[in-house]
Amino acid sequence: MIHPNMATMLSFVATDAAISGALLSRTLRGAVGSTFNSITVDGDTSTNDTLAVLANGQSGAPKMTIVGRDYEKFAEALTEVCKSLALAIVEDGEGAQHVIEIQVRGAPSDCAADQIARTIANSSLVKTAFAGADPNWGRILAATGRSGVEFDFERVDIWLAGIPVCRRGREHAFDERVAHEKMLAKHVPIVVDLRSGKGRARMWTCDFTQEYVHINASYRT
Amino acid sequence: MIHPNMATMLSFVATDAAISGALLSRTLRGAVGSTFNSITVDGDTSTNDTLAVLANGQSGAPKMTIVGRDYEKFAEALTEVCKSLALAIVEDGEGAQHVIEIQVRGAPSDCAADQIARTIANSSLVKTAFAGADPNWGRILAATGRSGVEFDFERVDIWLAGIPVCRRGREHAFDERVAHEKMLAKHVPIVVDLRSGKGRARMWTCDFTQEYVHINASYRT
Repeated sequence: MIHPNMATMLSFVATDAAISGALLSRTLRGAVGSTFNSITVDGDTSTNDTLAVLANGQSGAPKMTIVGRDYEKFAEALTEVCKSLALAIVEDGEGAQHVIEIQVRGAPSDCAADQIARTIANSSLVKTAFAGADPNWGRILAATGRSGVEFDFERVDIWLAGIPVCRRGREHAFDERVAHEKMLAKHVPIVVDLRSGKGRARMWTCDFTQEYVHINASYRT
Repeated sequence: MIHPNMATMLSFVATDAAISGALLSRTLRGAVGSTFNSITVDGDTSTNDTLAVLANGQSGAPKMTIVGRDYEKFAEALTEVCKSLALAIVEDGEGAQHVIEIQVRGAPSDCAADQIARTIANSSLVKTAFAGADPNWGRILAATGRSGVEFDFERVDIWLAGIPVCRRGREHAFDERVAHEKMLAKHVPIVVDLRSGKGRARMWTCDFTQEYVHINASYRT
């Protein structure tokens, strides 16, 4: 590290597939959107991100230059590899105890869904609630509400760790102790359904712990 | 509190000034932008904010209905009162040790300056650095860079607690121990000058401490 104050993410993927540079580049761009660009630890963009893919064609398979059945399998595999690397970053977030998977659906558009997923993923109140394994769905709904997307909150359903906690914008009776127990898992899903369209998005983040603050406030002392 | 999970801000200002309802309402709207709407504790909008002003005319002064010299004094005083109330909220932020005043100037527009000031004010990395009184100006420049505003970083100057720490986008030699000492103060200013225009903005926030996480993660246990 030349300047360890600066966050840095360097990812390298290698494959023995035979594929043209143009198609490989296009595939990687496609894979990045739903993986590396769909994670956040604290909303602070790293100043220095690199993701590189190298294909040496050593597999001996025919070279892919256009989209086809083999290509689809390759693209899917590349996306899966990118996803596993991206999730490893979230798991390794400063002080992180949990990976939170946020799925937004039923939004007016994919773009609107993405905006909501990002707002939830970067909400300090949502992330600290997860640090305490606290099934505080009100914070999820509040973040959805302040995302800038227009929607009817009386249509919103929310599931937390698989449990329906909010229906039509109001609390859906659930056992808080059970929800708390489920939130102690390593991987905890949130689903927000606006029931107002077909837009979908997914983001991953981690919880916000005292250890995060400790690491980032006093790493030099 | 009917539902103590929900953040609530209720502010009431009373005056014995004599002023028409229309002019008072307009004055309050003007005062809010640079005070209540220029603070943030954690970026999570309260679900329930109210600011009300009441004028009973008991001062006996002539009633103000149009903008004039008396009115200017009144508007200034009202803004000052709003500012002191807004800063009290920041000082009282969960776990806050410091009030951070962020001034952005030299931006292409006031709107661009505001966007930068908000990004800095909500950066977890900037706020945790302040929790450790760590003069990490790189995090301020990084937040400026990811704000979405286009600018030439090689023109940027930054002052931290009154100390020039960055000139033309590069470190300006300074005594880190002195800067650390100055950052232990209750009120710490940041100035970012893009030297690319006349746009200005100001925001206030607080530092991000382990106590913030403790309060918001385990307030129910």
